[in-house]
Amino acid sequence: MISLARGWPTPECLPVEELADCARAVLERDGKTILSYGSSLGYGPLREWIAARHGVEPGRVMLTNGSLQGLVLLSQHLAPGKRVLVERPTYDRPLKILRALGAEIVALDTDDDGLDPDALARELANGPAPAFMYLLPTFQNPSGRTLPLERRRRVAELAREHDLLVLEDDPYGLIRFEGEPLPLLLDVSEGFTAYSSSFSKTISPGLRVGWFVLPEKLARALEAIATGTYITPVQLGEATIHEFISRGNFEPNVARVSELLRVRRDAMLDALERELPGQRWTHPDGGYFLWLEIDGVDATALLERAEQAGVTYVKGADFGGAPDSIRLAYSFVSPEEIGEGIARLAAAIPVAV
Amino acid sequence: MISLARGWPTPECLPVEELADCARAVLERDGKTILSYGSSLGYGPLREWIAARHGVEPGRVMLTNGSLQGLVLLSQHLAPGKRVLVERPTYDRPLKILRALGAEIVALDTDDDGLDPDALARELANGPAPAFMYLLPTFQNPSGRTLPLERRRRVAELAREHDLLVLEDDPYGLIRFEGEPLPLLLDVSEGFTAYSSSFSKTISPGLRVGWFVLPEKLARALEAIATGTYITPVQLGEATIHEFISRGNFEPNVARVSELLRVRRDAMLDALERELPGQRWTHPDGGYFLWLEIDGVDATALLERAEQAGVTYVKGADFGGAPDSIRLAYSFVSPEEIGEGIARLAAAIPVAV
Repeated sequence: MISLARGWPTPECLPVEELADCARAVLERDGKTILSYGSSLGYGPLREWIAARHGVEPGRVMLTNGSLQGLVLLSQHLAPGKRVLVERPTYDRPLKILRALGAEIVALDTDDDGLDPDALARELANGPAPAFMYLLPTFQNPSGRTLPLERRRRVAELAREHDLLVLEDDPYGLIRFEGEPLPLLLDVSEGFTAYSSSFSKTISPGLRVGWFVLPEKLARALEAIATGTYITPVQLGEATIHEFISRGNFEPNVARVSELLRVRRDAMLDALERELPGQRWTHPDGGYFLWLEIDGVDATALLERAEQAGVTYVKGADFGGAPDSIRLAYSFVSPEEIGEGIARLAAAIPVAV
Repeated sequence: MISLARGWPTPECLPVEELADCARAVLERDGKTILSYGSSLGYGPLREWIAARHGVEPGRVMLTNGSLQGLVLLSQHLAPGKRVLVERPTYDRPLKILRALGAEIVALDTDDDGLDPDALARELANGPAPAFMYLLPTFQNPSGRTLPLERRRRVAELAREHDLLVLEDDPYGLIRFEGEPLPLLLDVSEGFTAYSSSFSKTISPGLRVGWFVLPEKLARALEAIATGTYITPVQLGEATIHEFISRGNFEPNVARVSELLRVRRDAMLDALERELPGQRWTHPDGGYFLWLEIDGVDATALLERAEQAGVTYVKGADFGGAPDSIRLAYSFVSPEEIGEGIARLAAAIPVAV
């Protein structure tokens, strides 16, 4: 089975040997701190590095056991019984978290440039004030789309105008294959943005180190909830990552990982051109995923046929997408497997469509 | 300030150098697994070791980022809007978690032998069925008390009779200074017990590795919630602990740590005899804490005076205890500081009581 479902980095991405030495080194140097209870905000030196990178006070930076854990804390604090705005389609795990908390989810329309700011403006003008908006502006999961600068500015203006908190989830932003990085929403919308990212895509997902940059008041609220949930996040992973960064490995590793991913993105685009001419798919400049729409085909029914043919994916409906939409991950398998997987997918499409 | 408040292991307890080498070794040997996403139940080899130790199937064992995180998951699943039974006094963090989830907390009476089974029997006979009971039967936090075998059997009978799930929280059980270990409630009440413990007191709290042994159905439910909360717990800490155990370090380290703690327990008992004759305190055979009652003294008002005198503690009221009760931790500071701390505490008591 070739998995075009799994949003995992291909194992080559993991800098295993260097991290082994980093873990040993930090425990030898700072073991008493790392092995004890500590701040519920996480390991100080890594928080300081992140704070400097974003130009904020360290007190606004919170590390969590993966960024999803932080999203849970934030949602527990803000979402119960409230309206929360999301894009359609969007990452499925936040949808499940918000539903479980009894939030009312309002999915806003998107186009090839991501969130439609007019849809946001209409919703803010008409609906009751939402608790926050969850947004993945760069190399979105599941669509691979990126919100252009002018739309980021428009979203920032609307946030200011309506006192709307936007959670900018940005796990993929540094995995860029081409083009210039765009300013973060955090940078164009100071005061109205909570920002989350992680080292899952740039160093290792298994270390489970996510980070949040939060408005001061929200940081204090989530700090208290974190204390009552897990006391301290796991500092060993955080300190290991800090050591990896301090040794100058971060930027070179991001470049190396991005190249491994770019080759896979290219293999998928080539295979789609070859195997599915005439269908529609996105052309992401970075990240893990692209979005395929196969005209008139039910992606749920197709999934069963595809798996029988030895390839799997996640149907777009799981992300709130249309019935004919599909999320394809090019992050995990080899370029050759990607080519073969797309060929199997194409062969599984019923001829009589 | 001498802290008799902090339930932390004294830093000498932490086997820093050995853990540094263990972290390096497991990353070199099994790095691709540890650094990737994995099972939401945690690192397989450690789960298997725990399962064998308890004589259960590995599918019933779940590792969490500290056992408190697991208690949150379990409470989210079972407690909202339901009755939950606890001891009075009991560990304060679960009380806060349960309150935040909207549970109705029913605190049952205890005596010098811990939970009074008659109080449990009365509650089960009269009240609506509770979602579960939270119990710390061994070296309880905050009281240091241990539930005797005959009471464990009685609790097991009542659980069977009333189909009551008991969560046995057992972080301190292995830190025993004298006497024979008692059977776990898990062992005398198979099928009606969810068991939780952690490596925080036996190896390191900062690695945040807790474990649960759960009834099969509950294990599957919490596995799903864990996936939706943090995907995978942090395997690096779990694998480092597994390596530490595999090298034969676990039992010797537990013995070493217990001796460090015993000396501190003795120093506190001696100081109490010397400084506070005529007052009441518990004599724990293990764990981190003892429970002091100073006749007619308001422990909340005394805390301010004590802190001015350079010693701090946690007032018993935080655990649901009486106004004159105090939790004293002997785990963190040196035996000399314990003696000095108790002297300062005694001197802070108003003479005119």
